[in-house]
Amino acid sequence: MGSGYMKRDIESLKFLFNPRSIAVVGVSRDPLKLGSIIYHKLMRNKTLGILKAEVYPVNPRIRDLDGARVYSKISEIGESIDLVVIAVPAEVVVDIVREAGENEVKTAIIISGGFAETGRKDLDEELRRAISESSIRVLGPNTLGVLDLISGVDTFFLPHQKPLSNGRMAENLPEAILGNVAVISQSGALSEILMDCLKAGGVGIRTIVCVGNQIDLSTEDFLRYFAYDESTKVIAVYLEGVRDGRRFLNALIEASSKKPVVVMKAGKTEVASRAAYTHTASMVGSIQVYRGAFKQAGVVEVEDMEEMVDVVKAFSMLNPVRGNKLFVLTNAGGLAVLSSDLALQYGLAIPDMPVKVKEDLEELKKHGLIPQIAVVQNPLDLTAQGSSESFEQVFRIVASSSLYDLYLVMPSHQPPSLDDTVVDRLSSVARKYNVPMVVCEYGESEWSRLIRERSDKLGIPSYTDIRRAVKALSALTSYKRPIERSFKYPIKENRLRWIDSLPDGPLSEDSAIKILKEYNIEAPKTFRIMEEIELEKIMEHLSPPLVLKISSSKITHKTDVGGVLLGINTLEELVEGFRLLKKRVGDLGVEWEGATVQEMVRGVELILGSSWDAIFGPVVTIGLGGIYTEIIRDFSVRVAPIEPYEAEEMINELKMKKMLEGYRGSPRVDLKKLANAITSFSSIIFENSSIKQLEINPLIAKDDKFYAVDVRGLLNKREKG
Amino acid sequence: MGSGYMKRDIESLKFLFNPRSIAVVGVSRDPLKLGSIIYHKLMRNKTLGILKAEVYPVNPRIRDLDGARVYSKISEIGESIDLVVIAVPAEVVVDIVREAGENEVKTAIIISGGFAETGRKDLDEELRRAISESSIRVLGPNTLGVLDLISGVDTFFLPHQKPLSNGRMAENLPEAILGNVAVISQSGALSEILMDCLKAGGVGIRTIVCVGNQIDLSTEDFLRYFAYDESTKVIAVYLEGVRDGRRFLNALIEASSKKPVVVMKAGKTEVASRAAYTHTASMVGSIQVYRGAFKQAGVVEVEDMEEMVDVVKAFSMLNPVRGNKLFVLTNAGGLAVLSSDLALQYGLAIPDMPVKVKEDLEELKKHGLIPQIAVVQNPLDLTAQGSSESFEQVFRIVASSSLYDLYLVMPSHQPPSLDDTVVDRLSSVARKYNVPMVVCEYGESEWSRLIRERSDKLGIPSYTDIRRAVKALSALTSYKRPIERSFKYPIKENRLRWIDSLPDGPLSEDSAIKILKEYNIEAPKTFRIMEEIELEKIMEHLSPPLVLKISSSKITHKTDVGGVLLGINTLEELVEGFRLLKKRVGDLGVEWEGATVQEMVRGVELILGSSWDAIFGPVVTIGLGGIYTEIIRDFSVRVAPIEPYEAEEMINELKMKKMLEGYRGSPRVDLKKLANAITSFSSIIFENSSIKQLEINPLIAKDDKFYAVDVRGLLNKREKG
Repeated sequence: MGSGYMKRDIESLKFLFNPRSIAVVGVSRDPLKLGSIIYHKLMRNKTLGILKAEVYPVNPRIRDLDGARVYSKISEIGESIDLVVIAVPAEVVVDIVREAGENEVKTAIIISGGFAETGRKDLDEELRRAISESSIRVLGPNTLGVLDLISGVDTFFLPHQKPLSNGRMAENLPEAILGNVAVISQSGALSEILMDCLKAGGVGIRTIVCVGNQIDLSTEDFLRYFAYDESTKVIAVYLEGVRDGRRFLNALIEASSKKPVVVMKAGKTEVASRAAYTHTASMVGSIQVYRGAFKQAGVVEVEDMEEMVDVVKAFSMLNPVRGNKLFVLTNAGGLAVLSSDLALQYGLAIPDMPVKVKEDLEELKKHGLIPQIAVVQNPLDLTAQGSSESFEQVFRIVASSSLYDLYLVMPSHQPPSLDDTVVDRLSSVARKYNVPMVVCEYGESEWSRLIRERSDKLGIPSYTDIRRAVKALSALTSYKRPIERSFKYPIKENRLRWIDSLPDGPLSEDSAIKILKEYNIEAPKTFRIMEEIELEKIMEHLSPPLVLKISSSKITHKTDVGGVLLGINTLEELVEGFRLLKKRVGDLGVEWEGATVQEMVRGVELILGSSWDAIFGPVVTIGLGGIYTEIIRDFSVRVAPIEPYEAEEMINELKMKKMLEGYRGSPRVDLKKLANAITSFSSIIFENSSIKQLEINPLIAKDDKFYAVDVRGLLNKREKG
Repeated sequence: MGSGYMKRDIESLKFLFNPRSIAVVGVSRDPLKLGSIIYHKLMRNKTLGILKAEVYPVNPRIRDLDGARVYSKISEIGESIDLVVIAVPAEVVVDIVREAGENEVKTAIIISGGFAETGRKDLDEELRRAISESSIRVLGPNTLGVLDLISGVDTFFLPHQKPLSNGRMAENLPEAILGNVAVISQSGALSEILMDCLKAGGVGIRTIVCVGNQIDLSTEDFLRYFAYDESTKVIAVYLEGVRDGRRFLNALIEASSKKPVVVMKAGKTEVASRAAYTHTASMVGSIQVYRGAFKQAGVVEVEDMEEMVDVVKAFSMLNPVRGNKLFVLTNAGGLAVLSSDLALQYGLAIPDMPVKVKEDLEELKKHGLIPQIAVVQNPLDLTAQGSSESFEQVFRIVASSSLYDLYLVMPSHQPPSLDDTVVDRLSSVARKYNVPMVVCEYGESEWSRLIRERSDKLGIPSYTDIRRAVKALSALTSYKRPIERSFKYPIKENRLRWIDSLPDGPLSEDSAIKILKEYNIEAPKTFRIMEEIELEKIMEHLSPPLVLKISSSKITHKTDVGGVLLGINTLEELVEGFRLLKKRVGDLGVEWEGATVQEMVRGVELILGSSWDAIFGPVVTIGLGGIYTEIIRDFSVRVAPIEPYEAEEMINELKMKKMLEGYRGSPRVDLKKLANAITSFSSIIFENSSIKQLEINPLIAKDDKFYAVDVRGLLNKREKG
């Protein structure tokens, strides 16, 4: 799905965002009807010269509106139509779409609700059919549609003014300012709120598109569109869920490899409904998989609306940053202390300055530009005596040193020594040395607001709180251009053809081990034995201590029935154990399928599992063994297949990573090789779609080798991959 | 330190906050001098009728100011003075204080800086002497002083208006509104910022006091004062550090047992400088001890300025809440989804409604008050069709059910169906059923601001973001009235007198075990042996497996020198091991002090340590053994002595608590008995001040017993406790 696919998307979507002609179906003499509101909005934009497109009102029941001719149907317009906006009752929509299709209209926005979202699956089906039978591309239904500040297309039908009880009109929805942020939203309400908050934050919008029911055009299409759109610098996505995780992931990667994509995923608490056979399958919720996918796509994830606005603002005004070294400059000591605490919390470092820079700053002190009582360090507190000029001079010296990646400046306005030139002074230094800087200024006094507004106007993102500023700075460092790649679907057949002949249900240990071996994952030296008489001979091939286990396709939790015996050192013990297990199997009334004898392996215990996510398909989980994974929930998830560099990122994510690095004399794990093992393991579930769950628990790392000591798996050939 | 102590504080502090007469020393003809600014502010408040006190300007070099007589010295005033505000150069301050003392002035605010904070220790010393030689109580030096909105005392010398470059005056510091919040701040800058942010949040202030250098009056005094002040509903504290942790903790407990205390502690990243002999001592930083102390005092801790304002606002307008069950009502689906995610993140529950309530709500649906497409559940999304009346009706039914502890209502104003009566309607229901409710309304449109302002005016805290609203709601549930108690200092002598004869430095294992035994903490059955010949007899008294360890006061890290042998089962092995250890000790060139033989104990491994915090004195740390404590930093800290209920809270704080509850067949630990063990252990370090560090690692829990398998300790008799 390279740029060939893209080109087609852009071809059709440009008619949606930048049409030459628009038909509005559903205008009415009632100015409060949605069709009328939209028509009047478009006409206003035309009058203002913002909208270049021709606008044609359509309604078979009226002949004219405000002196303009109203067309009875689309065909009557007699011009080629790029976009039809449909705001009529749900029952009529299908007919309009068919008519539009017949008239070769390129795109449609179906504002009308009343389809699948209200249970009208029938209308939904009909609409899908109508769309598939034409070449029209459709946004909606059940959507606010598009607000495009460049072309002037605006179907957001909510009024900018709304009357109060006392009759006075008050601002309901602020006019957005033109900028470089593209918003893709799965919620109408949240897109209005974002619109308001972005405006309040001084952030300009390029386009907002509400995806509605996504009957045709979807989040993925818009991600691709804005990825290649030169007017878009950052893409903000409000996401509730997607239908096809791999398609979504590919679109994310494509977009994110071009520019920052900031995603807020709501619905984190939804419970995965999948039947869990393995630990990992039960542990990994839908949100963990989304998070893994976001990381694979280099997406910047935010957790709430405020953070969304703050982070988008940073990316809109500044560029992504590689390092995390922060310099803090203020005239309020308390803020300096707070910023240290918070910066560290969000992964930023506040290294002190080298002697050379300190000397230059001490020189400023001699000239009275740094107050005598101020200590030259990072964060640097100029104290209430700090003047605007001292801010500028200090910032100049530090910025010119190229030592820091990020700058947080907090020129608290209250002290008399600070005047309102401070932001302009800082801005000119930031521009000269091309360093990313944000301003934090608290409060709502007139001075506070002036400082922030001036800052935003100069392209320096301003924030009202240190935490918010620091989160935004941290986000600038967290965007990583992903490697362009494509997540295909798993091949429907098993690469290992012999798996086809296995029955659905739990995998036998033999088969599981055989599968692992095919992918170069070793099990400890293991023998399957049916009869006591074999034991003596087998003992010659193994070095104790040994493990003796029941081999059974019926008994899945062997430990629970006393079916695992550890630390067997002699033939005597082995024989005794074998008899015991045989008796236990007999007692359970289960057929004897033999036992396995294994060399015991000691080392660092890991858990490596794969499961089949309802949205993303095969996913892989790595964690430290047992307790760490389950109680601390210390594990990392990615969508399969997993590249070695991604596997390394997974390992780096583990809180308990120290345990792999030779903690307290425990063996050091070869992390490169572990990454390779994860990659190989990810291929198993990806290349053999019958395997729905597979888990090595524990996977024991010893020296530079990995041993799958216990494996569980679940086959299901019928279920679609 | 009961109310007797309190009474004295209040007696003197009332002259500071509500004086009958004020002398301002340092007025001048220059209106920009601090003394003049303060004098004019006070005179303005007098003119406005806010300030009742008489105000006398003092300056020996001028005779009159604005037509009023200026006194050359305090004695010349001829009236009894309750408060003197001193704004003169540091060098002159001591003389003024002496003069005030001689004239029996009750209190002083020393605005002037230039003392210890600028390195002038000499002036600091002189000032202390002057204060101690009189009965005057002093706030400062180096402070903004006091802003009291009830009495009209206002020494905050920063201008409310400040000129812009273009000459226009712009609001620099907003006028605070009168309310019930008392602010105690260690930073002048942050108190101004808080003042601005509280005003912006619609929160009223009772008093702000900046503690300055705390040469006399300190945070603790003000905590006590506001605790008993009837005009104060909530106390907000900005804290950088305290000198005497126990005094501070007692003041916190006293205040917090009267009303909510919200604390922001800055300087979390400061490194403890104490020499660490034990793991716990090296692990527990200053901030962990502060956090433990805050919990012991029932204090609500906040992490940044924004949270401070949000939480204080909640406590100012609402009362603390017991339960955590939240009902969410909105007309914006996206906000409903987001609120679920965030509520759970901050420890709130969103249980669904019982059938009865659902039925009542379905009834509303029949009457068209809940839109047909809305699903009756919690969170309840009325959709964009939800009217103000439907908000009211739904809220009435749910609030009257008494099922929920907290209510979050988000009446997004954009849809036409919502009018501006919504907040008044909701408020009347909240008042009728006396339920705590907050409003969340995003954005800065005129409607947004009107909704929030109206809400605040009606005493319903409004927030601009769900996370902020949810954090504030969660804070309402986290205030716990502490049990009134007093943290005394450890008794300077050791209760165990025999400890006096031990040398300073590491404790021998014998002594450590003996100490533990005195406090009912058992060690496994242990024998000390010097000669091989003793082994046979000792073997008769012990059940293998055994542990054999070097006994040495010189070798502290026994494991590192191979000085610990595990799993000894026979006399032969014991003899062999004994010879090995003796050889190893010999090889190290260390004197042979024998070996200890111990029965091996298996169970759940804990770590229990105590250390001597520079601020709070003896503190105790509990964690799960080894890795958990060190890598995950899963431990809990409290100031000693520790009550059993506090020990239980410590256990509940452990992330790995499941490990104590019989996780995966591991033995269940008796948590009541563990709490008792922690309490006993806390007495050791508290009652024996020579013991500066003591650590049981591991403490093994087996059945309902606890065994101190290894103990390390450090004695220091000379260092002050």
